[in-house]
Amino acid sequence: MADTLPSWTDGETRTAIVDFVERVVDEAGPDYVEPASRVAVFDNDGTLWCEKPMPIQLDFTIRRLGEMADDDASLQSQQPWKAAHENDMDWLGGAMVKHYHGDDGDLKLLMGAITRAFDEVTVEEYDARVTAFFDDADHPTLGRPYRGCGYAPMVDLLRYLEANGFTTYIASGGDRDFMRPVAGELYGVPPERIIGSALGLSYREREGAPDLLYKAAMDFFDDGPEKPVRIWSRIGRRPILSVGNSNGDLPMLAFTGLPDSPALRLLLLHDDGEREFDYVAGAEDILEHARRNDWTVVSMKDDWREVFAPGTA
Amino acid sequence: MADTLPSWTDGETRTAIVDFVERVVDEAGPDYVEPASRVAVFDNDGTLWCEKPMPIQLDFTIRRLGEMADDDASLQSQQPWKAAHENDMDWLGGAMVKHYHGDDGDLKLLMGAITRAFDEVTVEEYDARVTAFFDDADHPTLGRPYRGCGYAPMVDLLRYLEANGFTTYIASGGDRDFMRPVAGELYGVPPERIIGSALGLSYREREGAPDLLYKAAMDFFDDGPEKPVRIWSRIGRRPILSVGNSNGDLPMLAFTGLPDSPALRLLLLHDDGEREFDYVAGAEDILEHARRNDWTVVSMKDDWREVFAPGTA
Repeated sequence: MADTLPSWTDGETRTAIVDFVERVVDEAGPDYVEPASRVAVFDNDGTLWCEKPMPIQLDFTIRRLGEMADDDASLQSQQPWKAAHENDMDWLGGAMVKHYHGDDGDLKLLMGAITRAFDEVTVEEYDARVTAFFDDADHPTLGRPYRGCGYAPMVDLLRYLEANGFTTYIASGGDRDFMRPVAGELYGVPPERIIGSALGLSYREREGAPDLLYKAAMDFFDDGPEKPVRIWSRIGRRPILSVGNSNGDLPMLAFTGLPDSPALRLLLLHDDGEREFDYVAGAEDILEHARRNDWTVVSMKDDWREVFAPGTA
Repeated sequence: MADTLPSWTDGETRTAIVDFVERVVDEAGPDYVEPASRVAVFDNDGTLWCEKPMPIQLDFTIRRLGEMADDDASLQSQQPWKAAHENDMDWLGGAMVKHYHGDDGDLKLLMGAITRAFDEVTVEEYDARVTAFFDDADHPTLGRPYRGCGYAPMVDLLRYLEANGFTTYIASGGDRDFMRPVAGELYGVPPERIIGSALGLSYREREGAPDLLYKAAMDFFDDGPEKPVRIWSRIGRRPILSVGNSNGDLPMLAFTGLPDSPALRLLLLHDDGEREFDYVAGAEDILEHARRNDWTVVSMKDDWREVFAPGTA
């Protein structure tokens, strides 16, 4: 195909992807995989869209904390609502920095508030809030809306895999229901193929109308060793291709592959400070593991002709 | 279509189904539903296959307890392994009868053992055990193998819905991974569209080989108000058609339907002691609810031309 992976630079990485796909679809070849088993899983934050300077979902949730403080003045003097209300990024960023230095106090305050931020909200109300957020929220430094922060080469890859009989899923540490309202537009992936972390839900009938409402507690956090668990729970198959970018993706990539079949593990390296960001923090272990095990490292700088789709800024 | 729902008798029930489907696919009509939102969910035990005289999964698990007692003589004197080892159906059936009379002791013993019966078994080993069970286990009274115990009219309905752009899911109180290995052959439904109860899973690497192993604890029991929760978790949409047969399906059927769109709720009534079984125990509440709310009750005796596919005995 002339337009296979158009946002990818010709080179070793692109060749590794195309070779893998051509092998598994070749019915006469030794590496043939039947279509039902062609399952591909993609992490989201830092793999399909930007995760710096902070995960998009964190921005969304901090705005929600700010709204809570607008509605309830008593919260305006309590952290983390105070910081959200005052847009105090130093406090919010400091919570994470302190955590890296062994002081979890502020991060616990923040996470506790985040877990309770959507208590008793219905799944449809949450969907509407997420949709409204993406309607006008911009990335703080890239000069583009958040809905323009998906990586064009990854969208190319999703379409290329699907054109070759793969079923694609997103398997993210981010909240499942935060991704669902926009994953169709950004990635062409429907809600039933979004796997992610989940708040607990409770079923309730109110005046004969049955609703699902979020609890103020996580059901599970879909990261690290939980990723293979949630992939199996949802799909009932092992993936044969997986894409990630951080240590939390290591078990997912390791879990990829069937006996006697080829597997492709792709690890996105953020080495493009000019067009996106340049960092390895949080990816040290998986980079080391990838180098030892011949996993395919994707250089954003060298392997991607474009990072974002034209016209999305 | 000449062969629409061939195992269904012409009559009100069949007409209600066909009318509903024709309305939601009619792009020019007021009840049109886009294909992505045409989600149909089916309970399994007592809806897609027989659940009497005991759920098929219970037979499978009791055989497993018997094997455990074969391997470990110390279990042969302890309930419930003793009963499983001696094929003591009176004790096993009595546990349920006592439960109905307020004495939970034996049922708790049984459920505790069942929860632990696959501790540390990998998901692939479990699949192989389930497959082997269905290779030769027979229904105790119907004179047919368990793999011939799926209802032909429900398979017709699955195909008819899919031919009309619906996506079908099984949403059962039974164990998800017990249904997955056979749901393709019996119902044409692949593993990623099976929703059910789940044992906890843990991810472990053993000599570089990553595995998922069952824990001796449930993750969740997918029945009653948990069914809508698990449907949302997996699909991210409300169904517009649902099929059930017992009180545990009431919230799932109530949760069915979108605002301003039609919904169809089908309740299978087991009133055919000649071809299958005749019982309402465990379905009293939902039958009452169906009658009050105009849900469609399917009479096995009157609405089904055949119960099982020819050639499956």
